[in-house]
Amino acid sequence: MTAYTLRPIGHVESALTDRAAAPRQPDEGAPDAWLVFDDRYAPALKGLTAGTDVLLLTWLDRADRDTLTVHPRGDATRPRAGVFATRAPDRPNPIGLHVVHVLAIADTRVHVRNLEALDATPILDVKPVLGQDR
Amino acid sequence: MTAYTLRPIGHVESALTDRAAAPRQPDEGAPDAWLVFDDRYAPALKGLTAGTDVLLLTWLDRADRDTLTVHPRGDATRPRAGVFATRAPDRPNPIGLHVVHVLAIADTRVHVRNLEALDATPILDVKPVLGQDR
Repeated sequence: MTAYTLRPIGHVESALTDRAAAPRQPDEGAPDAWLVFDDRYAPALKGLTAGTDVLLLTWLDRADRDTLTVHPRGDATRPRAGVFATRAPDRPNPIGLHVVHVLAIADTRVHVRNLEALDATPILDVKPVLGQDR
Repeated sequence: MTAYTLRPIGHVESALTDRAAAPRQPDEGAPDAWLVFDDRYAPALKGLTAGTDVLLLTWLDRADRDTLTVHPRGDATRPRAGVFATRAPDRPNPIGLHVVHVLAIADTRVHVRNLEALDATPILDVKPVLGQDR
């Protein structure tokens, strides 16, 4: 099958640097963070508004792409499941999907609440949460 | 910034072949479709269950990656918005995000309800809907 090339549009700035210490879900202690977009994408951010929730897509660049099954939540007492039935970061195309609340926007820097992505994680895309804006 | 390579894990089989005729959202007349996974990913599908909703990530291979602003829903009377504030397929990394209901699973073929993706669209990832399975 054809392969496709992702071009990251920015990166995450966060106090989280260690995968082992990172929360598994945003409501499990994830810190606020900055989304830093490349200047050339400034026009694409127009209409993004503080106070709303958005979907953030990232590339989990420290994931293992050859993993096909995992113990859910890393718990060895739970039977292995296919990665497509879990939210494990290890998977063939490790795309992270996060719902984040936008706290503030300063040019191409966007401050968001409770993001479980590690520092320097590449950003791929931002979309409105459906229902909220179509 | 570093570029990353996507490896499609399968493709969509659908009666939808024409982008101009495709519904913009699944509740606007999208047909049922098949997700056809490459055999080598069979282990990664273990745990996927008929009767549940899943998140499907696709690569919108007919999108224009240089578009940064659009008229929302293609309506020229609406002011241009940045693509990151819309669900337009045209965007730097055209990753499609779909919530689909699984009707049936037959080995590496998964039948789903109301999918607005075009026939032959590459599949990148499948994840549980959060809240439903963590």
